[in-house]
Amino acid sequence: MRHDGRTNDQLRNVEMITDFVIHPEGSVLISVGNTKVICNASAEDRVPPFMRGEGKGWITAEYSMLPRATEQRTIRESSKGKITGRTMEIQRLIGRALRAVVDLNSLGERTIWIDCDVIQADGGTRTASITGAFVAMTLALGKLVEGGKLKKLPITDFLAATSVGINSDHGEILDLNYIEDSSAKVDMNVIMTSNGSLVEIQGTGEEATFSRNQLNEMLDLAEKGIFSLIETQKQALGDLALLVMDTIEKKNA
Amino acid sequence: MRHDGRTNDQLRNVEMITDFVIHPEGSVLISVGNTKVICNASAEDRVPPFMRGEGKGWITAEYSMLPRATEQRTIRESSKGKITGRTMEIQRLIGRALRAVVDLNSLGERTIWIDCDVIQADGGTRTASITGAFVAMTLALGKLVEGGKLKKLPITDFLAATSVGINSDHGEILDLNYIEDSSAKVDMNVIMTSNGSLVEIQGTGEEATFSRNQLNEMLDLAEKGIFSLIETQKQALGDLALLVMDTIEKKNA
Amino acid sequence: MRHDGRTNDQLRNVEMITDFVIHPEGSVLISVGNTKVICNASAEDRVPPFMRGEGKGWITAEYSMLPRATEQRTIRESSKGKITGRTMEIQRLIGRALRAVVDLNSLGERTIWIDCDVIQADGGTRTASITGAFVAMTLALGKLVEGGKLKKLPITDFLAATSVGINSDHGEILDLNYIEDSSAKVDMNVIMTSNGSLVEIQGTGEEATFSRNQLNEMLDLAEKGIFSLIETQKQALGDLALLVMDTIEKKNA
Amino acid sequence: MRHDGRTNDQLRNVEMITDFVIHPEGSVLISVGNTKVICNASAEDRVPPFMRGEGKGWITAEYSMLPRATEQRTIRESSKGKITGRTMEIQRLIGRALRAVVDLNSLGERTIWIDCDVIQADGGTRTASITGAFVAMTLALGKLVEGGKLKKLPITDFLAATSVGINSDHGEILDLNYIEDSSAKVDMNVIMTSNGSLVEIQGTGEEATFSRNQLNEMLDLAEKGIFSLIETQKQALGDLALLVMDTIEKKNA
Amino acid sequence: MRHDGRTNDQLRNVEMITDFVIHPEGSVLISVGNTKVICNASAEDRVPPFMRGEGKGWITAEYSMLPRATEQRTIRESSKGKITGRTMEIQRLIGRALRAVVDLNSLGERTIWIDCDVIQADGGTRTASITGAFVAMTLALGKLVEGGKLKKLPITDFLAATSVGINSDHGEILDLNYIEDSSAKVDMNVIMTSNGSLVEIQGTGEEATFSRNQLNEMLDLAEKGIFSLIETQKQALGDLALLVMDTIEKKNA
Amino acid sequence: MRHDGRTNDQLRNVEMITDFVIHPEGSVLISVGNTKVICNASAEDRVPPFMRGEGKGWITAEYSMLPRATEQRTIRESSKGKITGRTMEIQRLIGRALRAVVDLNSLGERTIWIDCDVIQADGGTRTASITGAFVAMTLALGKLVEGGKLKKLPITDFLAATSVGINSDHGEILDLNYIEDSSAKVDMNVIMTSNGSLVEIQGTGEEATFSRNQLNEMLDLAEKGIFSLIETQKQALGDLALLVMDTIEKKNA
Repeated sequence: MRHDGRTNDQLRNVEMITDFVIHPEGSVLISVGNTKVICNASAEDRVPPFMRGEGKGWITAEYSMLPRATEQRTIRESSKGKITGRTMEIQRLIGRALRAVVDLNSLGERTIWIDCDVIQADGGTRTASITGAFVAMTLALGKLVEGGKLKKLPITDFLAATSVGINSDHGEILDLNYIEDSSAKVDMNVIMTSNGSLVEIQGTGEEATFSRNQLNEMLDLAEKGIFSLIETQKQALGDLALLVMDTIEKKNA
Repeated sequence: MRHDGRTNDQLRNVEMITDFVIHPEGSVLISVGNTKVICNASAEDRVPPFMRGEGKGWITAEYSMLPRATEQRTIRESSKGKITGRTMEIQRLIGRALRAVVDLNSLGERTIWIDCDVIQADGGTRTASITGAFVAMTLALGKLVEGGKLKKLPITDFLAATSVGINSDHGEILDLNYIEDSSAKVDMNVIMTSNGSLVEIQGTGEEATFSRNQLNEMLDLAEKGIFSLIETQKQALGDLALLVMDTIEKKNA
Repeated sequence: MRHDGRTNDQLRNVEMITDFVIHPEGSVLISVGNTKVICNASAEDRVPPFMRGEGKGWITAEYSMLPRATEQRTIRESSKGKITGRTMEIQRLIGRALRAVVDLNSLGERTIWIDCDVIQADGGTRTASITGAFVAMTLALGKLVEGGKLKKLPITDFLAATSVGINSDHGEILDLNYIEDSSAKVDMNVIMTSNGSLVEIQGTGEEATFSRNQLNEMLDLAEKGIFSLIETQKQALGDLALLVMDTIEKKNA
Repeated sequence: MRHDGRTNDQLRNVEMITDFVIHPEGSVLISVGNTKVICNASAEDRVPPFMRGEGKGWITAEYSMLPRATEQRTIRESSKGKITGRTMEIQRLIGRALRAVVDLNSLGERTIWIDCDVIQADGGTRTASITGAFVAMTLALGKLVEGGKLKKLPITDFLAATSVGINSDHGEILDLNYIEDSSAKVDMNVIMTSNGSLVEIQGTGEEATFSRNQLNEMLDLAEKGIFSLIETQKQALGDLALLVMDTIEKKNA
Repeated sequence: MRHDGRTNDQLRNVEMITDFVIHPEGSVLISVGNTKVICNASAEDRVPPFMRGEGKGWITAEYSMLPRATEQRTIRESSKGKITGRTMEIQRLIGRALRAVVDLNSLGERTIWIDCDVIQADGGTRTASITGAFVAMTLALGKLVEGGKLKKLPITDFLAATSVGINSDHGEILDLNYIEDSSAKVDMNVIMTSNGSLVEIQGTGEEATFSRNQLNEMLDLAEKGIFSLIETQKQALGDLALLVMDTIEKKNA
Repeated sequence: MRHDGRTNDQLRNVEMITDFVIHPEGSVLISVGNTKVICNASAEDRVPPFMRGEGKGWITAEYSMLPRATEQRTIRESSKGKITGRTMEIQRLIGRALRAVVDLNSLGERTIWIDCDVIQADGGTRTASITGAFVAMTLALGKLVEGGKLKKLPITDFLAATSVGINSDHGEILDLNYIEDSSAKVDMNVIMTSNGSLVEIQGTGEEATFSRNQLNEMLDLAEKGIFSLIETQKQALGDLALLVMDTIEKKNA
């Protein structure tokens, strides 16, 4: 058993509170264990300059941590005057992942801004951000449909993310918290859709390497966790989830 | 009656949830109507370079708004690569105000970092930040006393802040929300201690002026609101509030 | 008596040299004791992007100190690559103050840029800047009237600023120089018009507090000083002052 | 056959010119088809502040492209005043990969700086950088051994990288050039050691997804390419390659 | 004899490899002894904002050194987030020099971007950049003529640059390498056309002064070196050189 | 005759007011026609990090223009967040020039900071800055001698600067004002000592070239102007000038 009592293939407790902030078109507070992220989605009726005139939409994301989201206070990126490489990597990852399940042509010349602000961190903030951001984005797109700006929900599938890794004591484990992540030999983030298709996989040996077998065992764990996260997303989205499932069925038919 | 049903001298609903985030030494979520600010206080065992060797402590503050704290999404200061003048003014104000009620000599060579992160804004974010920050700071200082790092709480008084203003329809009003603030002719922020002493007063005519009489009427409203905010602080602080009151009594004796 | 021989309610010597620099539409060198500020006003035939198409004008200010305006050399903000919070506060204050006495609608889509460059500092640089900037701005607006770009002077009143404070030795004092400012317990900047209406008041306890009575005594001193500064402005402006007084009379009639 | 005549599992021509620049401790010009990168390794006798006193070494990398390495001129990051997210991702990747095959404890408190400057780009610049950087780093470490600063080569294995992807016309392909990369549905970078262990895997669906089967087929292609690249590294390193092979044998023994 | 065996009036070995990089309109690798610079010229069909609508063209240059072009690794300007004064001086100099021999009116509303990237430095990088940049620019302009975008080559003369200096041991010397440059008392860069007309002269006493006679002796050396550099340019340019010579003749006729 | 009535070899009116600002160790307001520069010199008892421990001193300069020093308002470099290439060139030039006439060894580990702030510009601001800076620096060094920190004035010669140029209407001219400078074909700045030795010469053809003869004629004019400027410096320095002359004589003896 892991130090917090979980089995190797067990997620932490997951909770998603929708409409957490009143102003955004879509807003979710996602908790994965002690990791808590406010995910807000904002709809804007234009696209960035490099896309104008193509008739397509865009999804872009920003990610930040409050200074005391962490055990030690970290300096604000606004005070430093620049964004760290880690933040850039994460926000590029979130945007790219979400774009994989959105039909940008149906979205039209609109941008959905995703803001993921970590208010409390205990490992897995980027995967929690993606999982929560999917819900916030879907809520915002649902509002565009409701308001008559879009004819149908331009979402092609559910999408969630989790981390897996390899640890000296326990071998392959699912959903690492901060302590587990700090001591893992291999760390991998996996993003999948509802039928287990891969959207992104990023596996890294931390001053170590890993075999093809280990890779496959980690992917099995990830799939199990992601299917469970998608169930929670469906509950949080309520009727909107039915609309998404409907779209998937039509695509597969 | 004001558009939200309040009388001119009435505060909005005020709530303070302590220990909102688990990592900081002091953490409060303050709500003043729809304005919500996470105030975290972090204790650090050293002071900034310009104060080293003086044996005195320091209180400093940072303030930020989530992009969708506001009705329209605002650009992150970290993306712009610099902090706006408005943010600088506010964080200087928060730090200066708190230092007025802390005995920096008893604090010793320690810094208390205050982080005020507005997650939802509806006017009065700077005064809500100060009022919440006082509670977060007191919790953090209480923990230093508890942990034996300080012999006594180095706080000399309670401190809270509110806004007052003048409006064409209602005259002098207390605790302006965003709509009221946008249309006010005069806008004033007042910071006071528990006996009504002024710590800071910043009154501004917005393309308008105001008389000495109007100034005094606004200060009367501010005092009423601040005394009420200090009562809520006392409830949030529980036993720690008794320690602060004890200090005040000794000072006055 | 104060260390430089003044009484508590006495201003330092004030001098305003108009047309100090040849290029600007309005230019003044203001001296308040040893504090010397070059105030230049530039008229531009357009407004910032956020105001375009509204038919209104704009007044904006920038403030800077030469590195050796001070006893110790300070680093240039251009070398640091960013503007300090103090500078931002001051330039926002100067612009806001001047806008309170300008009829922005009559100004039309024009910007008046105010540049306040402190060449020698001995306390009160921000209030000297505002007092001098009013004269430079009026000269520039006068030139627009003369050149036929404006039908009438869009100024609604005179405006000047001074500092007041509380000092352990002397109590409430007017127009603090650097030494007095460094040791003051309370420091307040006051901006008023010719009939004593308040435009801005910023009072701060420096690790101290102040009572409502003390506030009122300081405001009495400020009023006295500001009335005297406005007299000097009138002399510096010559015939243009008559035009301003004429406007005020019409407004009050 | 692919548009340049290659089969799906065929690398482009690979060339490595050692000692390309005279000043660095290790210098290589690597060509992979038309992609050309100067990889320089610099040895410094200290580590970054966050590692001081631990007795361990550090490997860090910087990556840049000349403005006309690309078909269209790109703006210099020095002119923009900041590094793009793409550059940050790549330089973090290069450093992390190399650290996986270096015994940082044996290196001692030293830093190896890796500079990868792309002078001509045609796809796969990050994997060419890693493959070339391994050679430059080994040359620099060899010089430290030669100069008596290190007793033995602190390298635990060979390391090379390549890209694989999925393309509508050809399915899974190895070593994508720029045209293939632009139209690929799935793009994956793989970094492996000489026995096929994974150091890093980054697979991304570009507005698309991929299955577990496709992942495994791409990994088979990558392994084939990487084994061939390691052969070329051995030839470039000459006698130093024997030392590395010797270390690997001892580790496995 | 100088430490590398040259006489006082002798250039180092000079080589110019055209078409060194495949993408730019003009590309040259120039070597002057151990100093090696990649000079790329890019043609763009528009001019900077401040020149639009004038019907004239523009030549602008950027200059950079790879971190290990030098004996000690230098920090990248992109990492520092700003360009040094030295770099700015050099890139302004390169652009200004080239514009002196281009008929900007015949060029039309086009910009030629010159990128000089020093891959190996041993003194004289700015003069080698100018000499190489002239060739790269001419190749790019030749391509515009070839492609029918320009009727004739808008070049009015050849242009090359070299350094001269005064050294305690040898007196006036031509084409200083790094060691000679570091110990020179006077350092001068000279840019001339094919008939010996001066385009730019920058002479500096390094904590020393120099006489009018010494100035003239240095200019004699420079002229000799520049005439030789122009011969090498002609060989590198081949048939294009004939076109330039033709233009010069017509101008003089 | 030139448009302002001067002959080709005539300087504008030159004035130097010493002790213009009270705080700096040396302060001068220099006027050359309508060009006015405040030159302040600050003495600091340490040198920059790269020079520590060498026992030598350092002279460094900063240069700036007030926004309305010019006919059109220019944006502050502090607002832009960076220093332009032009400013960098000028401040490097001022520092380098002054160091040529200071015995840095006798200065000891001290820095003289020179601040040249142009309050009104009409051409020749950089040469006026150098000429004024020499006086300010000498005053500051004189104060160090007076205060016993230095045994003797570490100045080896007088130093002044002027501009010369070539103009279509008048040929070679001395001390160009803004209008003359804008239309000059050749522009040259010359810095000389009291015996006519060159310290720096920077001549530039503005989309034009110049001959060796023209260069020599311009240098003759420059010498005449500089000798006259040095006479004005002597008057401004009073007794200190005698000390400098004494040093020169001893050096030549």
